[in-house]
Amino acid sequence: MLLRDPIDFYFDFSSPYGYFAAERIDGLASRYERKVVWHPILLGVTFKVLGTAPLPSIPVKGPYSLRDIQRTARYLEVLYRPPSRFPIATQQAGRAFTWLADRSPDVARQFALAAFRAYFTEDRDLSDLGVVLAVAGGLGVDTDELSAALAGDELKARFKSDVEAAVARGVFGSPFFIVDGEPFWGSDRLPQLEKWLAEGGF
Amino acid sequence: MLLRDPIDFYFDFSSPYGYFAAERIDGLASRYERKVVWHPILLGVTFKVLGTAPLPSIPVKGPYSLRDIQRTARYLEVLYRPPSRFPIATQQAGRAFTWLADRSPDVARQFALAAFRAYFTEDRDLSDLGVVLAVAGGLGVDTDELSAALAGDELKARFKSDVEAAVARGVFGSPFFIVDGEPFWGSDRLPQLEKWLAEGGF
Repeated sequence: MLLRDPIDFYFDFSSPYGYFAAERIDGLASRYERKVVWHPILLGVTFKVLGTAPLPSIPVKGPYSLRDIQRTARYLEVLYRPPSRFPIATQQAGRAFTWLADRSPDVARQFALAAFRAYFTEDRDLSDLGVVLAVAGGLGVDTDELSAALAGDELKARFKSDVEAAVARGVFGSPFFIVDGEPFWGSDRLPQLEKWLAEGGF
Repeated sequence: MLLRDPIDFYFDFSSPYGYFAAERIDGLASRYERKVVWHPILLGVTFKVLGTAPLPSIPVKGPYSLRDIQRTARYLEVLYRPPSRFPIATQQAGRAFTWLADRSPDVARQFALAAFRAYFTEDRDLSDLGVVLAVAGGLGVDTDELSAALAGDELKARFKSDVEAAVARGVFGSPFFIVDGEPFWGSDRLPQLEKWLAEGGF
């Protein structure tokens, strides 16, 4: 059996396009016998590198984007309900993912999907520690242990360094994929990514 | 026969993604019995509204975009050769289009495609008045007449006001489409635009 390199998938928990990609990437990858390594990032850090700002704050492009997000959800047939607060801080969710991934990448991925759905389909405020713990608890995670880890400095430093490593690799948006060294930015690049997997590059 | 509203197609002559869309939009529209009205704009004007800058000047995202442009050309099977100078000023090409469109929308569209191809497949510098006149002359246009119009203030004012009208309508990038009041930004939105035409919205 040929062992192919996994797909690196970078996302911010506050990114609707990241959520859309999260709902699609594992299924897409499995059709080409690829695994996916999920990496939460912080768009706030990448915005500083690019000298830009969150989409909703940009004149003209902001209002367009809010419309495009809803249309893209319908196009991709992904359930989407615009959250009351958008965007939000996602450090707690990112750190929780990192802590879970060290224990079980599979549970971490389930957590990521459940967290995305809580925020983007049920309007639960994922910047709230209680919501992060409740989502993890719903998967059978020991929330006392997770809560203690989230309160400590070690996990904070670890997640910060993971985000910096992503930025150092050239990741600047959400979703962002790296496949065999080739970078793809945006949920609208999934068709190109699929062609890349099918043909081994093009 | 049902008369449907035309598709408004906005583009900057210096935009590779605008060029890709220009190679595809008429064929796509005709499959749904739609006409396309072509509108050159100036991204420099929209960048001021958004507080942004040309792609190549943006850290990290700039280098990614140069790669994405070439990959997207291969994906869409559109011939593309990165120009030596990029981006360039496109006022002369935009004004020439406007002057031609007043006389024959069909010749103007032929000019737009020929100008895009001159810049993006033959590396001819479209910011140069001589190149603009040569492209128009290749279509049988009287270049003395066009040259005189380009030297006058009337055409400059007219094109400026057309670009301002586009910005006032919410156009902020290239390519940009408006179909029955619905805005689509980016060549990567052509599949959504097609679904919109096929289903009368979605």
